Amino acid sequence: MALRDVRALVFDVFGTVVDWRSSVIRELEAAGARYGVSADWGAFADAWRYEGYLGGIAKVNRGEWPFMTTDELHRRKLEELLPQYGLGGMPEAEREDLNRAWHRLDPWPDSVPGLWRLKQRYVISTLSNGNVALLVQMAKRAGLPWDCVLGADVLGAFKPKPEAYLAGARLLGFAPGQVMLVAAHKADLRAAQAAGLRAAFIPRPKEAGPNVQPDLEPDPSFDITARDFLELARLLEEQAA
Amino acid sequence: MALRDVRALVFDVFGTVVDWRSSVIRELEAAGARYGVSADWGAFADAWRYEGYLGGIAKVNRGEWPFMTTDELHRRKLEELLPQYGLGGMPEAEREDLNRAWHRLDPWPDSVPGLWRLKQRYVISTLSNGNVALLVQMAKRAGLPWDCVLGADVLGAFKPKPEAYLAGARLLGFAPGQVMLVAAHKADLRAAQAAGLRAAFIPRPKEAGPNVQPDLEPDPSFDITARDFLELARLLEEQAA
Repeated sequence: MALRDVRALVFDVFGTVVDWRSSVIRELEAAGARYGVSADWGAFADAWRYEGYLGGIAKVNRGEWPFMTTDELHRRKLEELLPQYGLGGMPEAEREDLNRAWHRLDPWPDSVPGLWRLKQRYVISTLSNGNVALLVQMAKRAGLPWDCVLGADVLGAFKPKPEAYLAGARLLGFAPGQVMLVAAHKADLRAAQAAGLRAAFIPRPKEAGPNVQPDLEPDPSFDITARDFLELARLLEEQAA
Repeated sequence: MALRDVRALVFDVFGTVVDWRSSVIRELEAAGARYGVSADWGAFADAWRYEGYLGGIAKVNRGEWPFMTTDELHRRKLEELLPQYGLGGMPEAEREDLNRAWHRLDPWPDSVPGLWRLKQRYVISTLSNGNVALLVQMAKRAGLPWDCVLGADVLGAFKPKPEAYLAGARLLGFAPGQVMLVAAHKADLRAAQAAGLRAAFIPRPKEAGPNVQPDLEPDPSFDITARDFLELARLLEEQAA
């Protein structure tokens, strides 16, 4: 199938659509200030994301842990991190609210205008390891105009399992080759391609903190590489012309 | 929980948000015209809906048929109806397109402005026996601004099974009492209430054809009865004031 057969664009969310790190650091700083604690909140955010979330998904995908939602994976790691960072006395309601920092992530500057433009020609949906409730709250706050919200709890699997990508295409009513994953992460894109989807790479150089060196090199094995969602829209419009 | 605790409005779709009967009759008339066939297209639409769709769901819910999507239930009945109405020679691509008439249903006049207004205060989502692909295509064509699209294929059950309502609340991240079903059909609302949801009744006197007498009487056992979605928004805003 050619690129002009693509009918739906499905998006990785954390890092690709929203700037998780700055947003989470902002909420951790505010929590720290309430308790008179200062700490390396970037390191807290990185541990929450890389060990808690990505590490937890890897455990679920290896069968070591039962399936749980992203909200639950975040909460589990939060319990471990709070006492390490001098916030062990935080009461339950405040913990639950801080856990929802992941519902309040800011979009990259091009995300909202880019999605509106892409939505004119394509079905646009999340294809995220986040859970639906988290993704819906995030979209409402940030103004992300999704046609559909698909998360791991309705896909029935976490990416990079092939089932997650295939369930996305099936639920949207398209063949895998009619669906293109848009993501900032090469491993996600490669897994989507292995499942038969198309792949658009959007490097996000500001996603990672100083402790992670992201792989931002263009890779000709992807169908498209674009600087942001507006350039992606332009390139797709040229392909269709 | 009080009415002011409601955080999400979930909507029945066929009949409540969109006028399935006029829309389907319009497509059947066009198909008939292409083949020089005239027939009682209202009776075709009614059989498609009441025997094919609702009858099929009842069979799935009784365990007589395996789960299948609404697109599949519609297609199954279409195969039976086409030869009965002189359209047995229709080729496959045209059948498949006619089956997607259910993706192209027109909204009631208040649906789009009402949903935009309700969306300001609430998470608004479908809670439909339709499948996600059908609901997404319908929303894109009609301009229905859903925050989330939930259909039987992600809910894991057809209404009026309690699991369908409970899955909707769980996926949106709310307790059942924080979610209100908006529907034109009392049986749907009663099943939602039995599962712990709130219920708003919107009678739609123009939904049914001449062969069905809908029950449009107000019923005080529902939390709200409103003439349309704009009145529903007004009544909810008053409750919250």
